[in-house]
Amino acid sequence: MEVFDAHIHSEGRSVENLEEMAKAGIKKALTCAFYPIKPNYPETLVDHFRKLREFEVERAKSVGMELHVALGIHPRCIPPKYEMVLEFMRDCTAFGEIGLESASELEVEVFRKQLELAKELDIPCVIHTPRRNKLEVTLKILRILEDLDFPRDLAVIDHATQETVRHILDSGFYAGLTVQVGKLSVDEVVEIVDEFGFERFVLNSDIGFDKGDMFSTVKAVKALEDRFDKKDVERIAMKNALKLFRIERC
Amino acid sequence: MEVFDAHIHSEGRSVENLEEMAKAGIKKALTCAFYPIKPNYPETLVDHFRKLREFEVERAKSVGMELHVALGIHPRCIPPKYEMVLEFMRDCTAFGEIGLESASELEVEVFRKQLELAKELDIPCVIHTPRRNKLEVTLKILRILEDLDFPRDLAVIDHATQETVRHILDSGFYAGLTVQVGKLSVDEVVEIVDEFGFERFVLNSDIGFDKGDMFSTVKAVKALEDRFDKKDVERIAMKNALKLFRIERC
Repeated sequence: MEVFDAHIHSEGRSVENLEEMAKAGIKKALTCAFYPIKPNYPETLVDHFRKLREFEVERAKSVGMELHVALGIHPRCIPPKYEMVLEFMRDCTAFGEIGLESASELEVEVFRKQLELAKELDIPCVIHTPRRNKLEVTLKILRILEDLDFPRDLAVIDHATQETVRHILDSGFYAGLTVQVGKLSVDEVVEIVDEFGFERFVLNSDIGFDKGDMFSTVKAVKALEDRFDKKDVERIAMKNALKLFRIERC
Repeated sequence: MEVFDAHIHSEGRSVENLEEMAKAGIKKALTCAFYPIKPNYPETLVDHFRKLREFEVERAKSVGMELHVALGIHPRCIPPKYEMVLEFMRDCTAFGEIGLESASELEVEVFRKQLELAKELDIPCVIHTPRRNKLEVTLKILRILEDLDFPRDLAVIDHATQETVRHILDSGFYAGLTVQVGKLSVDEVVEIVDEFGFERFVLNSDIGFDKGDMFSTVKAVKALEDRFDKKDVERIAMKNALKLFRIERC
């Protein structure tokens, strides 16, 4: 079954890695903007966005992966004078990854401004939740979205856990299931969809600069195929992401 | 035998790739600055340099590779107002990769300014020569170096070929032998050192964003070990690079 990996950082992978992923079934993926140090200049993120759109998309295409790009200011890499960056975020597939890490005042300010822009421009958002204080920060994110009356079909709250998934689904948003060492195991993904169904989930590996399992989404999909109806598995493997990111109308 | 790969672009490799390289014997490497699209802002290169020094060095270290960093403006990625970038190139192991691609007037201007700075600050340089018009552009580079009375121990003219190597050595500089698909084969490296000795060569793979052989320098070293004295092979595998880049006094 073909898989859409709905959150990767392709820049952390060699072209041979991307080829292995495509050959394993990950034919489409969304690469999210992220700069691995805090940039000293907003201009760095603007060129980073250009690099993702001009270079990364072609690099992936050359080895059989259709790469889509999410642009945004990650809470861990907010540059000075970040307002300049927002101007370059119009006209794209998605915003990402945006969200909160420590949930500082600056992070909340930058997150809200990006959400306001996404709502205005009708652009879907990949929203990061942190490892630390996962539940508390996820709830804070949900309150911010609620406060903005943010459209339910326009956001995936990512890195959901068994602790946070119910809150996310109750709020009406998509939940991102990150199958990765230190995040969800394949078994946990099976348990979660067994309880909550397939309708509002997208799968991802978050593979990038760190060591990790590039094939984790494929492994999860295979485990799901063993237990559930093919049509349901197709939703979480591909169709929900295509719909959410408006890549094809399904 | 431990190998120093004297020209890579670590950013194009996943952390698992760097680990495989280290395990294969490439215990040390020099990663050269290069931005895969032409940046619109000089600030992008300044943050790129910070990323190489702060993030890439740690990423390689975490998997057993001692990474050294060369900073510079590659002829294919000269930003507007590039003078700002030069200010951030002081106090580093090496300049690189710098050099000429099309040998346009702007490229020559930026190359010369970097060489003048390198001479002033006594910093060794990794100098790129292009695939197209290889001989013509290499000779132009040598004329520029001659014109500046550039110290012979302060530059490696990289991507040397059987056609250009004699000119480089006659000028007194180091020659970089890039063992890679589309550049030199292992057999060609053997032939070159058989004719010209081991004194003024460093080996590299130029592995980075493109598909390629990450282990090419190790393969070349093994082929050299079969034919030549161990002490000579150690020079080209490690010692010449340590001396050139002032990493250890040998």
